[in-house]
Amino acid sequence: MNAVAHPKAQAIAALVAAMPEGTILTLDDDVARYSRDWSGDHYARPLAVARPHSVDEMAALMRCCHLEGIPVVPQGGLTGLVGAAVASRPGGEVVISLERMNKVRSISGIDFAMVVEAGCILEEAKRQAEAQDCILPITFGAQGSCRIGGNVATNAGGFNVLRYGMTRDLVLGLEVVLADGRVWNGLKVLRKDNRGYDLKQLFIGSEGTLGIITAAALKIFPRPTQVETALVGLGSVEDAMALYARARRECSDLLTAFELILRGGIEIAINARDDLKDPLSQPYPVYVLIEASAAGRVDLKGLLEEFLAGAGDLVLDGVVAASRSQGDRLWLLREMMVEAQGRGGRYLRTDVAVPISSLAGFVADALAALEKAYPQALAVTYGHVGDGNIHLNVVPPKGMGAEEVEALFHAAEEVIFDVIDRHGGSISAEHGIGRVKQKAYLARADAVSLELAGLIKDALDPSHILSEGRILAARPAAARGD
Amino acid sequence: MNAVAHPKAQAIAALVAAMPEGTILTLDDDVARYSRDWSGDHYARPLAVARPHSVDEMAALMRCCHLEGIPVVPQGGLTGLVGAAVASRPGGEVVISLERMNKVRSISGIDFAMVVEAGCILEEAKRQAEAQDCILPITFGAQGSCRIGGNVATNAGGFNVLRYGMTRDLVLGLEVVLADGRVWNGLKVLRKDNRGYDLKQLFIGSEGTLGIITAAALKIFPRPTQVETALVGLGSVEDAMALYARARRECSDLLTAFELILRGGIEIAINARDDLKDPLSQPYPVYVLIEASAAGRVDLKGLLEEFLAGAGDLVLDGVVAASRSQGDRLWLLREMMVEAQGRGGRYLRTDVAVPISSLAGFVADALAALEKAYPQALAVTYGHVGDGNIHLNVVPPKGMGAEEVEALFHAAEEVIFDVIDRHGGSISAEHGIGRVKQKAYLARADAVSLELAGLIKDALDPSHILSEGRILAARPAAARGD
Repeated sequence: MNAVAHPKAQAIAALVAAMPEGTILTLDDDVARYSRDWSGDHYARPLAVARPHSVDEMAALMRCCHLEGIPVVPQGGLTGLVGAAVASRPGGEVVISLERMNKVRSISGIDFAMVVEAGCILEEAKRQAEAQDCILPITFGAQGSCRIGGNVATNAGGFNVLRYGMTRDLVLGLEVVLADGRVWNGLKVLRKDNRGYDLKQLFIGSEGTLGIITAAALKIFPRPTQVETALVGLGSVEDAMALYARARRECSDLLTAFELILRGGIEIAINARDDLKDPLSQPYPVYVLIEASAAGRVDLKGLLEEFLAGAGDLVLDGVVAASRSQGDRLWLLREMMVEAQGRGGRYLRTDVAVPISSLAGFVADALAALEKAYPQALAVTYGHVGDGNIHLNVVPPKGMGAEEVEALFHAAEEVIFDVIDRHGGSISAEHGIGRVKQKAYLARADAVSLELAGLIKDALDPSHILSEGRILAARPAAARGD
Repeated sequence: MNAVAHPKAQAIAALVAAMPEGTILTLDDDVARYSRDWSGDHYARPLAVARPHSVDEMAALMRCCHLEGIPVVPQGGLTGLVGAAVASRPGGEVVISLERMNKVRSISGIDFAMVVEAGCILEEAKRQAEAQDCILPITFGAQGSCRIGGNVATNAGGFNVLRYGMTRDLVLGLEVVLADGRVWNGLKVLRKDNRGYDLKQLFIGSEGTLGIITAAALKIFPRPTQVETALVGLGSVEDAMALYARARRECSDLLTAFELILRGGIEIAINARDDLKDPLSQPYPVYVLIEASAAGRVDLKGLLEEFLAGAGDLVLDGVVAASRSQGDRLWLLREMMVEAQGRGGRYLRTDVAVPISSLAGFVADALAALEKAYPQALAVTYGHVGDGNIHLNVVPPKGMGAEEVEALFHAAEEVIFDVIDRHGGSISAEHGIGRVKQKAYLARADAVSLELAGLIKDALDPSHILSEGRILAARPAAARGD
């Protein structure tokens, strides 16, 4: 080692020497697109960007980082929204982009499984499953940008968790490069395997802090030949939850989505696009978008229509899409609402969960508390309520200054999290902790959980070079030897 | 501490002093029923048996064991069959029975969740779910004896994994007493929660080696109002697998079981009970028992009949049960086969898994290899083939001496495991490793997996007092300070 070189220059030199040409990017222009996440809220120039092509190159890269003590942060599609995948301080970390490891290694409609590299964009993996007449049921707005490795590392949720589970439930096996560059080969397509500890569970949802996921074996499912969509108007969130309880009992686990949208969200959507009209004959306080899916031998449309007709005491009005394109129009309301809430600039996103039985109470309490504290802000409420998961967002009033907006977000989040605490809920249902939710997480986590998490981190990443400071607080610099 | 007392006497004295009267059993008569598992194959008298009533008592017990360095083994219903839950050497461990912590703490048909103490017998938990018009879908032969804590600690499988997943997939939260007596309270009924590492995954399937599970929050499901059962005869395992692939595509995830039984198993069942007749008009090489479940709005029987009628190229003969009791009779064949194979004495049980696409090939190769090596032994083949899981058992010829039987079991297992290795399979699909499969597991596990597992063990149980020597090899006595 060259003791007089600047440590950062030395780190870059070591990486460039260890890796094939073109793997390490260091110029401002080259690293720019790896510096900012999808929200635009999180930015830091990394020390460098590494783009390995293969698990062997990834292993060589991590061996080098391990030897030189270079801190790294694996990066997927940058859509996680909690600041986990960009550098945590300018010049402080090497971003490892998975984008060049983007192949579907294998796919089988007999095993109902596919093996996908971490850098494969979710939509591409879904497309390849469909070519086998199957589906990969991870489904959400960012699917055209997010990557499989990020989906697994954050245990992504989405619309279809109700039927198919979280990403964790879909993972059959993983290939992971460890902090010291060794490869853990846990790739397999077995549907049952109780040989010892289920090590893959450690890496799923660990947000890059315990290892670098390079490939995943995932469950896929027969592609439904029928998909039916309905939008119904209801009088209250309580009625929506009562409808959900009945739907679970009467629809034989054929539901694939049950999305709650409060009236404000519908208004945002129809105001955002001229060709979107109010979907029902008059406005209702609460809407539910229902999707059911089945193969050929079930009269799915009849089932959905009968179910809704039998729920006349709850459903004030509703429409069952007559065609797939009409169904897509109903989903467009949901998508436009999400897109349009950000058109005026930044807005506060939350992603909370409560027990299903507490959901209506949580929404009422949180909206009342926000209305009292910030009557001028617009609360947008929607969610995957079959999973007890609500996105309760806050759009600041027009013309509010940046500093005031920041203060509003901070205070409004406190208000919402306080109600979550009272309902025994989670401050992060789908998106994880990263850096953005760390303070709120650490303030609420019990000492035993944090100690166990710390023990796991120390065991798998003893030098703390992997995504340090995400989820758990960064180890003090003295302990790191910085 | 009394330095002159015998260390075992001292350990017992410390436990008796730490716990309420009646918690610690030490007499031969009292500990006998905690000394032998359900198979009868695994026996050792424990040093003592502790039976705490509550998580607080469990915490006090483990604080004492931690301070005194007393090795323990948590014990549920003793049906795991891999020797994990009885003492590993006579007088060497304290058995901790969960039997007194057997309450259902809460249950909700709105949250579709129940919180159950570890000592609750599975059948009792299932009964309480049914009283809420729900089901707890862990289902297998030992359900009248096994306990929830054991189901979670071993990640139990069973008949309904196809539809509802393994026990791991059903766990929403856990309460665990750690090796040092601290309580980790991870009980919650949230269906989505991405706050930091998912610590409960560490304990699920760890066979008591990382902590003592005292309660679990479990998913429950709407109780199906229709259950249809069919038994079909087929020409080959290949045809059975082809039928499975079609069933998944055509039956909309409504299948709840798809059980393969080779002819030999049917013969064992019908020979074992006078009132059981050959179920179809003539014998077939291969049978599949199919179950589908749904709520009211699906014509389930029509669906199953139409599906089977459309599969006339594969299905040689079959019967769809006309009533629930006729369905139960079909299941009785399956149950009697399992029971009757043990009537002549000991038999070799295996519990292996392969990718679904390899299943037919595995069965053919394994049966050919067994036939060649041990033509006089009877191979009994059945399994949950939708999960790629086969139980390929070997019944020794009548009159074989005990030593010869032992040698046969050892050699036949080697033959089967060798074929499993060639098909990329698992030597333990459902039952875990315990002590019985440890040697075979360690011989096949890669070095990185074993090191990661060892790091986790050391992190959570640094003194190695929890179920030492299950899954992983026991730490050498010198390192333990014995």
